Amino acid sequence: MNKPDVVVIGGGVIGCAIAYYLTKRGARVTVLERDRIGDHASSAAAGMLGAQVETSFPGPMVDLCLASRRMFPDLQQELLQLTGLDIEWNSAGMLRLAMDERESGELQQRGEWQREIGEKAEWWSQEQLIQSEPALSSEVKGALHLPGDTQVSAPRLTRAFARGLHILGGKGVEGAFVTGLRVERGRVKEVETSAGSYRPEQVVLAAGVWTRSVARMAGVSLPVFPVKGESLSVQVSEPLFRKTLFGPGAYLVPKPDGQVIVGATERENDTSPGVTLEGLHRLSREALRMVPELSGGNWERSWAGFRPGSPDGLPYLGRVKELSNLYVASGHFRNGILLSPVTGRGMADLLAGLEVPEFHPFSPERGERVTQSGWG
Amino acid sequence: MNKPDVVVIGGGVIGCAIAYYLTKRGARVTVLERDRIGDHASSAAAGMLGAQVETSFPGPMVDLCLASRRMFPDLQQELLQLTGLDIEWNSAGMLRLAMDERESGELQQRGEWQREIGEKAEWWSQEQLIQSEPALSSEVKGALHLPGDTQVSAPRLTRAFARGLHILGGKGVEGAFVTGLRVERGRVKEVETSAGSYRPEQVVLAAGVWTRSVARMAGVSLPVFPVKGESLSVQVSEPLFRKTLFGPGAYLVPKPDGQVIVGATERENDTSPGVTLEGLHRLSREALRMVPELSGGNWERSWAGFRPGSPDGLPYLGRVKELSNLYVASGHFRNGILLSPVTGRGMADLLAGLEVPEFHPFSPERGERVTQSGWG
Amino acid sequence: MNKPDVVVIGGGVIGCAIAYYLTKRGARVTVLERDRIGDHASSAAAGMLGAQVETSFPGPMVDLCLASRRMFPDLQQELLQLTGLDIEWNSAGMLRLAMDERESGELQQRGEWQREIGEKAEWWSQEQLIQSEPALSSEVKGALHLPGDTQVSAPRLTRAFARGLHILGGKGVEGAFVTGLRVERGRVKEVETSAGSYRPEQVVLAAGVWTRSVARMAGVSLPVFPVKGESLSVQVSEPLFRKTLFGPGAYLVPKPDGQVIVGATERENDTSPGVTLEGLHRLSREALRMVPELSGGNWERSWAGFRPGSPDGLPYLGRVKELSNLYVASGHFRNGILLSPVTGRGMADLLAGLEVPEFHPFSPERGERVTQSGWG
Amino acid sequence: MNKPDVVVIGGGVIGCAIAYYLTKRGARVTVLERDRIGDHASSAAAGMLGAQVETSFPGPMVDLCLASRRMFPDLQQELLQLTGLDIEWNSAGMLRLAMDERESGELQQRGEWQREIGEKAEWWSQEQLIQSEPALSSEVKGALHLPGDTQVSAPRLTRAFARGLHILGGKGVEGAFVTGLRVERGRVKEVETSAGSYRPEQVVLAAGVWTRSVARMAGVSLPVFPVKGESLSVQVSEPLFRKTLFGPGAYLVPKPDGQVIVGATERENDTSPGVTLEGLHRLSREALRMVPELSGGNWERSWAGFRPGSPDGLPYLGRVKELSNLYVASGHFRNGILLSPVTGRGMADLLAGLEVPEFHPFSPERGERVTQSGWG
Repeated sequence: MNKPDVVVIGGGVIGCAIAYYLTKRGARVTVLERDRIGDHASSAAAGMLGAQVETSFPGPMVDLCLASRRMFPDLQQELLQLTGLDIEWNSAGMLRLAMDERESGELQQRGEWQREIGEKAEWWSQEQLIQSEPALSSEVKGALHLPGDTQVSAPRLTRAFARGLHILGGKGVEGAFVTGLRVERGRVKEVETSAGSYRPEQVVLAAGVWTRSVARMAGVSLPVFPVKGESLSVQVSEPLFRKTLFGPGAYLVPKPDGQVIVGATERENDTSPGVTLEGLHRLSREALRMVPELSGGNWERSWAGFRPGSPDGLPYLGRVKELSNLYVASGHFRNGILLSPVTGRGMADLLAGLEVPEFHPFSPERGERVTQSGWG
Repeated sequence: MNKPDVVVIGGGVIGCAIAYYLTKRGARVTVLERDRIGDHASSAAAGMLGAQVETSFPGPMVDLCLASRRMFPDLQQELLQLTGLDIEWNSAGMLRLAMDERESGELQQRGEWQREIGEKAEWWSQEQLIQSEPALSSEVKGALHLPGDTQVSAPRLTRAFARGLHILGGKGVEGAFVTGLRVERGRVKEVETSAGSYRPEQVVLAAGVWTRSVARMAGVSLPVFPVKGESLSVQVSEPLFRKTLFGPGAYLVPKPDGQVIVGATERENDTSPGVTLEGLHRLSREALRMVPELSGGNWERSWAGFRPGSPDGLPYLGRVKELSNLYVASGHFRNGILLSPVTGRGMADLLAGLEVPEFHPFSPERGERVTQSGWG
Repeated sequence: MNKPDVVVIGGGVIGCAIAYYLTKRGARVTVLERDRIGDHASSAAAGMLGAQVETSFPGPMVDLCLASRRMFPDLQQELLQLTGLDIEWNSAGMLRLAMDERESGELQQRGEWQREIGEKAEWWSQEQLIQSEPALSSEVKGALHLPGDTQVSAPRLTRAFARGLHILGGKGVEGAFVTGLRVERGRVKEVETSAGSYRPEQVVLAAGVWTRSVARMAGVSLPVFPVKGESLSVQVSEPLFRKTLFGPGAYLVPKPDGQVIVGATERENDTSPGVTLEGLHRLSREALRMVPELSGGNWERSWAGFRPGSPDGLPYLGRVKELSNLYVASGHFRNGILLSPVTGRGMADLLAGLEVPEFHPFSPERGERVTQSGWG
Repeated sequence: MNKPDVVVIGGGVIGCAIAYYLTKRGARVTVLERDRIGDHASSAAAGMLGAQVETSFPGPMVDLCLASRRMFPDLQQELLQLTGLDIEWNSAGMLRLAMDERESGELQQRGEWQREIGEKAEWWSQEQLIQSEPALSSEVKGALHLPGDTQVSAPRLTRAFARGLHILGGKGVEGAFVTGLRVERGRVKEVETSAGSYRPEQVVLAAGVWTRSVARMAGVSLPVFPVKGESLSVQVSEPLFRKTLFGPGAYLVPKPDGQVIVGATERENDTSPGVTLEGLHRLSREALRMVPELSGGNWERSWAGFRPGSPDGLPYLGRVKELSNLYVASGHFRNGILLSPVTGRGMADLLAGLEVPEFHPFSPERGERVTQSGWG
């Protein structure tokens, strides 16, 4: 019988970040991963740190995202020192493109309140745009320039958290799917898996789209649902643009090795594996519409992932009310990469008994209360 | 709400075979597959139809295997006509190799009782062997020649069952993982999945190594456990041998396109993904020991799969005693490909209300009774 | 020094077919392949046997194609017997789709002369079409029904020729790129390769798009040029259509395992590796235009190949005039799979000293004579 | 007609490094690559910067290697600044393992002369070894500790050179294989390729194992020959060792993401594609012999590459005597990654008309002179 202090269920970027921060605090942590560490939504992500690009109004969700975004420059150094892995933090910023008048108007309004809360969000006319990114199509009418919304390599971030926790003495078990949660006297007594059983003091559920069915094994209801996303990548030999380009139909994220990630469709409650022909068609059409010169880019890979959605668009961060030692960190939807450091650090604080006020709006107890994320 | 007649949980070769035979009878069947049809153990198999090669003594298991083996020649024609897919049934037979005196003795005894029950099982001396398969190493001391133990393409067999059932009007849903089984009045009322809910008349559980945890959702205990197997394949340009070569440490299965499958390790209760370096080392060493000329063969692929084992080595075939409409067909261990036709046909009969006497020894109710498989 | 009777330079479908027929006649043949047997254009092909679908007027090219097409039913049996590999000949026929009035008119004319030369080529109205293939879009206005234009698995055909020649005693050497052709007294005396030198009696050049640069090593000029083609494939669970659908912008070739191949772009003199984003966009758009239900098909693979083109659109089949023992079989453009049996058999006859009248119009000596292929 | 200043034939690490340093100097450079940039030997390499580990005696080759090794720390910073790509320079050093008395003796002698020329090379007893790297097998009898022999990511280095040259305005053309070199009045007038023709002022031949056959097109003889190398990699979750372990039968190179590269076999004049079963067997056996705990490592990939060897073991660096504008940089055998910066910088100097004294011993004119590399 294995008796770590904490078992984290789920080896995606959220689970690994939590385990990493816990291990830094000295806890003996084991991460249980159904398949391979980082294989699912965390590797499917494009790595955008978009705290501003998708938010329609201010609120605690934006605050959380901004707080997490601010952690990346130091985190990059920390993980590089510890593991030798560079998470490829790219500070070139983002452009939220408008393809017509209506979008221009909406984005200019968005820029306004973002500047009011102290963030940079300047409106760029078509002329300014073309000067900065000459490969943009003349169909693009203008853009909100968001220099703070940067990006990293999502697979490298997950990998670096995982390597870091191993180097610091934590454990990760791959191929361990949970087959039962034994509850006794109001707490999870045992986590049963295909790779043996565990009796930790505390359990963190960070299983992405599988959160709901694992929670159910302990009699806990968490309405996390899957939102399938399809992406593809191309290789360009000459660098065509430097900033992340976020349009109404797709986004384009340039990577240092010449890769451009084109993402992403959204299909609610679709868990079918693989990329559809329609997804490919949509993504390729939208990419060419934004940057026509991508036509000669070399297709590299296509993939799908399943984002964990929640009814009100907010993540669940905190202890479940039914059980005294079961915590949840899930439902990050499209913001798992961005929110991983703040989630990891905060959950480590929570498990250590500290108060984490910034998590209050995201309590799993909030039930069906209609708080809205401001995302869209 | 979907209301097929039958839901089959599991889209491996067993689930697809059952659904195929049910569809042929006219039932409206839906197969629910967690990932992709045929992606797991069914594709990992080498496709041997070894009814004799691994059995140490006679009994109902051998009888079932022989019955299933006899179905293949007709099945090949039937599936080819219907789907256009050839399952590549290869009738060249098998050699059970002995590397020392002790093994020679054991195999000669095995040959004896097999001949007594009417099967071909001739002992071949080293001289006879070399004449038939000159690429065999001189380390091989003799072999039991089993012309009836033939082989097919495992991925093609699964695919052909799946295509067949689609052509006949059945359905397969990929990416559908079961999240709950709702039981009411002694029967499964609803199968809840990530891809919607189903209310079928009858449910068949054919989920391989995941059988245990799905059964548990309905309160049923089925002690199926995983036995991981690692394999690799090489391509040879010149055909080195024609028969399947089954040695004490590995087997070599030649395919018509020049592929030779080298299998397989056995690791009980290991669900870690991927192939270990030790597995690679063992398989390559044993392959070269049997056929030294394989040294120049081109490595092609390495993979692992998880065979569903059972405590007494026998599959579970039949209705579970706790619920009136839940059937199980699992625990086929290393014989899933071989047993798929007899399992599919028999289960279709059972669900139609017929008696299937040959399944009696494999009742899921047998509990911990120590019947032994005779395998080893 | 290796001294086979014949060296065939090029291990694609043409080279393997020639070597196969030569080996059947008893010649000692070695095929030299730069990479792996069948890795290039032969595996990239969709496998259509389109003798009628693309031809605009009658002539020797159509005759050659029809002659080759007629060889496939027997060839399938022959290769299956010998190798155990089924080339998956599918006799469901082809539909040449018209998307507007102009195309309808042209195709009806094409049907007329094809019927005059004795081939089946019936015009189907939209109503007839929908009855036969209900998944077709209502954008399709009609089609020429070509039941004789069937299809096979291109990779399996190449593989089967290669296995067949090995079984019959021929040799294939992979990774052997030609570094020089030593000419003495009007003949090729030695073929120098990265894998050793050869002094055969006769040399056949069947190197696809590399034909030109190999020929040049012997001082022979053959204006074969590359025409890049991009394709993709999707998997559909339910069979959506049975015939090959050939539209003005792409074609859809259904395979027995549920694969649908969508091909192909044409880029002259483009030898860049890989599939462009524009290619993906075009193919996905055209596929959805013909069969909207393909939208849910699962993308499987994308790939590119290089077809060997010639200035007049006709292949080169015969001896080169400059050297007494150098033969060429190249420039098959989009018809390599279709023409492989007639090319293989005819070249084997030629090398044996027989007359092959049907090859006269394709003599490599024809130079820049403007014979046209009638393809388009 | 394209008229760059310089055409570099070959897009491996050597060609890209040369083009990078030339572009930095302001030259207009085009790299012609037969397949994809960095696809061949450069990606197959393990990335060791072994200036000391394999040399048996001092000389100009060791000096060149040491000079190049010293360039890496600055180069890492330079490429990271310019491209955002980290080449993952790992300074943990190397251990040259001795498995018996004879090897211990030889390595201690090697350490002596290396210390005499000012390099660190300390002998470590078994006790010291186990303290530093406790995962080493007790079969290891001692080791030469070489803290200066570090390592990088070979694919990232090549990629970073390629990205760098693009960012600085250079060009790379993929899929461009050379079909002819037109020589006029003692110089290469035109480089003919499958992707068009070029008339540069200067031509650099850096085509690795294809150098010989391209040189021949210009009538130049360069006896570069292929030495095939097979490798594999495994993933380990816990870091087992930190230094590169170089044993008599294989080497183990640990990467920051948990990958361990196991290399490499040597097969002279073997250009067959792919990894043999024997290669797999050897590498897995030797790896387990050095670090038994690797047995549970997850096999990740196997691959082969072709190192460009030369008769005397030294690279060719300089102008060929026959032609006034043709330079060669090839024959780096196992030291292409290590020697890429010094080769790139030196060749850029040479083409600019400067003297490069350290290249004198490596002149392509040295012919069959028996200078020895000291490698072995």
